[in-house]
Amino acid sequence: MSQIKNDLFLRALRGESVQRPPVWMMRQAGRYLPEFMEIKEKYDFFTRCRTPELASEITVQPIRRYGMDAAILFSDILVIPQAMNIEVEMKPNFGPWLPDPIREPKDLERVVVPDINDSLGYVMDAIKMTKEKLNDEIPLIGFAGSPWTILCYCVQGQGSKNFDKAKEFCFTEPEAAHALLQKITDTTILYLKEKVKAGVNAVQVFDSWGGMLSPTDYQEFSWQYIQQIVDALKHETHVIVFGKGCWFALNVMAQSGASALGVDWTCSARNARYLSGGNITLQGNFDPSRLFSPPSEITKMVTQMIREFGKDRYIVNLGHGILPNIPLENVEAFINAVKDYKE
Amino acid sequence: MSQIKNDLFLRALRGESVQRPPVWMMRQAGRYLPEFMEIKEKYDFFTRCRTPELASEITVQPIRRYGMDAAILFSDILVIPQAMNIEVEMKPNFGPWLPDPIREPKDLERVVVPDINDSLGYVMDAIKMTKEKLNDEIPLIGFAGSPWTILCYCVQGQGSKNFDKAKEFCFTEPEAAHALLQKITDTTILYLKEKVKAGVNAVQVFDSWGGMLSPTDYQEFSWQYIQQIVDALKHETHVIVFGKGCWFALNVMAQSGASALGVDWTCSARNARYLSGGNITLQGNFDPSRLFSPPSEITKMVTQMIREFGKDRYIVNLGHGILPNIPLENVEAFINAVKDYKE
Repeated sequence: MSQIKNDLFLRALRGESVQRPPVWMMRQAGRYLPEFMEIKEKYDFFTRCRTPELASEITVQPIRRYGMDAAILFSDILVIPQAMNIEVEMKPNFGPWLPDPIREPKDLERVVVPDINDSLGYVMDAIKMTKEKLNDEIPLIGFAGSPWTILCYCVQGQGSKNFDKAKEFCFTEPEAAHALLQKITDTTILYLKEKVKAGVNAVQVFDSWGGMLSPTDYQEFSWQYIQQIVDALKHETHVIVFGKGCWFALNVMAQSGASALGVDWTCSARNARYLSGGNITLQGNFDPSRLFSPPSEITKMVTQMIREFGKDRYIVNLGHGILPNIPLENVEAFINAVKDYKE
Repeated sequence: MSQIKNDLFLRALRGESVQRPPVWMMRQAGRYLPEFMEIKEKYDFFTRCRTPELASEITVQPIRRYGMDAAILFSDILVIPQAMNIEVEMKPNFGPWLPDPIREPKDLERVVVPDINDSLGYVMDAIKMTKEKLNDEIPLIGFAGSPWTILCYCVQGQGSKNFDKAKEFCFTEPEAAHALLQKITDTTILYLKEKVKAGVNAVQVFDSWGGMLSPTDYQEFSWQYIQQIVDALKHETHVIVFGKGCWFALNVMAQSGASALGVDWTCSARNARYLSGGNITLQGNFDPSRLFSPPSEITKMVTQMIREFGKDRYIVNLGHGILPNIPLENVEAFINAVKDYKE
């Protein structure tokens, strides 16, 4: 493995003491950047994902502008169901749309665990091209959705406030739900292992909709599959698990072998440290909407957040993806508040 | 005050020991009931709210079928902004739609604290008619949205996954946001006091979107206004505060003077008792989607839930409103599991 010049992020994942915490932002390559919008006007969503030149360019855009301490590959969690033979479209001003969702056990017959390099080789090419562009200046993060979160879209067929159809499927057809979750898990493990081979320095599992489940159902329908992913990957790379709304599972997550846990903004630093047992690296948790505050307030709030989490075993991030329409100078204030942090 | 024959609900609110906990369901008068759907086909949403004969009939429909231990007046939290001179429509298959939302400080000029009996007298008439129909068999609950939750709709103009526009308004125009929150609070206090005069036996404040805020922002933009409502009402009636996703505020809520706190399904009974200090009556928290499970499983899960919360200082409920399309026999299993509960 080649030496990464700015290894703050990796050191935080290893739990080493650092001068200041590293910083990156979920969805940092995206709609708030004018240079991204230029590319978006010319190419549709999956063309951007599937063209290594575009995906790698989009990945490094925020790094050029702000110098975050880690890059995250531009891609989407729904490339996994696509590769599994479930059609996924991305409708402008609407979001994901699956014209033929999974609604009955028999719908599973067409779902496959694919050959990764056949179906998702373009992601590996994008990783290699991004690594060249990054030139070992900073680490590159790869990611996947949690099996539960992927199931949510496969069954609901689109975004939702409560994913009622996905939950109805799990609670009325639990055997079929578990069969689907296992197929997604198997695919995700193969996929993330290929990503590591292609060069990513860490992987993050996004359980965006884990917080829709009760603690008992979370164990049954989400966590046990994430644990399989952590078990399969933890000896090959750092695994970060981010469960939005999953404060109730932080104690189990902390014992999983993951290198770090993502936290959303409803869980205070103090609660997050307490619930996770105090020893694991935490990542988060600035409310993405708080980036609408004036830059001077952002600076104060970020400094306060670092004081509360502590500079060690901590990675500064938002509590969910950055929103569109955030002013560029506000992002700059966020990043610079971390870089200028002094104890 | 007349004597309520089945006073299980009131006894639970007073913290008295009971043979079994009382049970009702948020949105129990609604779309899963065929008798409700018949009325819905004939009259639009606000006609149902504004016609005391219809509102009272809808309120008692679930009681006739299942015999819950409390009724909750059929109405909507958005009658408050309507009365405050903010137009609210209810679009079929879409939900609330506010054609002229609050987006700038000057938009507040048209917002009034209304005379309650002028603008919301129809609610009081519906309460009186419902009380007659209930004939003191069970208590009647009145409700209001929390000021923060009402602001969410007033600014966003419709339902939302993250109420980004509402939060942007609060974080860029905090003075205007607080002025609006105070007007909503003043109106809500007058409204709930009139409801008590008209005959409700308890009131519930729904903070449906409190869980969108960080703990610090929750105190600033939501809780301080709910506390004003509790302070103004607690000597006149029982106040229940339900904050969806607000597990992080249960400790403050427990010291507010409220008689009970609602809990959603992401907070286990054990966590809820711990976070609220162990002495206050709790209400909840069955996952509404779990009513899709077979009746025999529902019975087991409800019994287990009562064991975990304990039969005293506990009101059985869902963790949010009941969903449409829930089979009638599943609701029956839910209610009967409580009625048949034995220690």
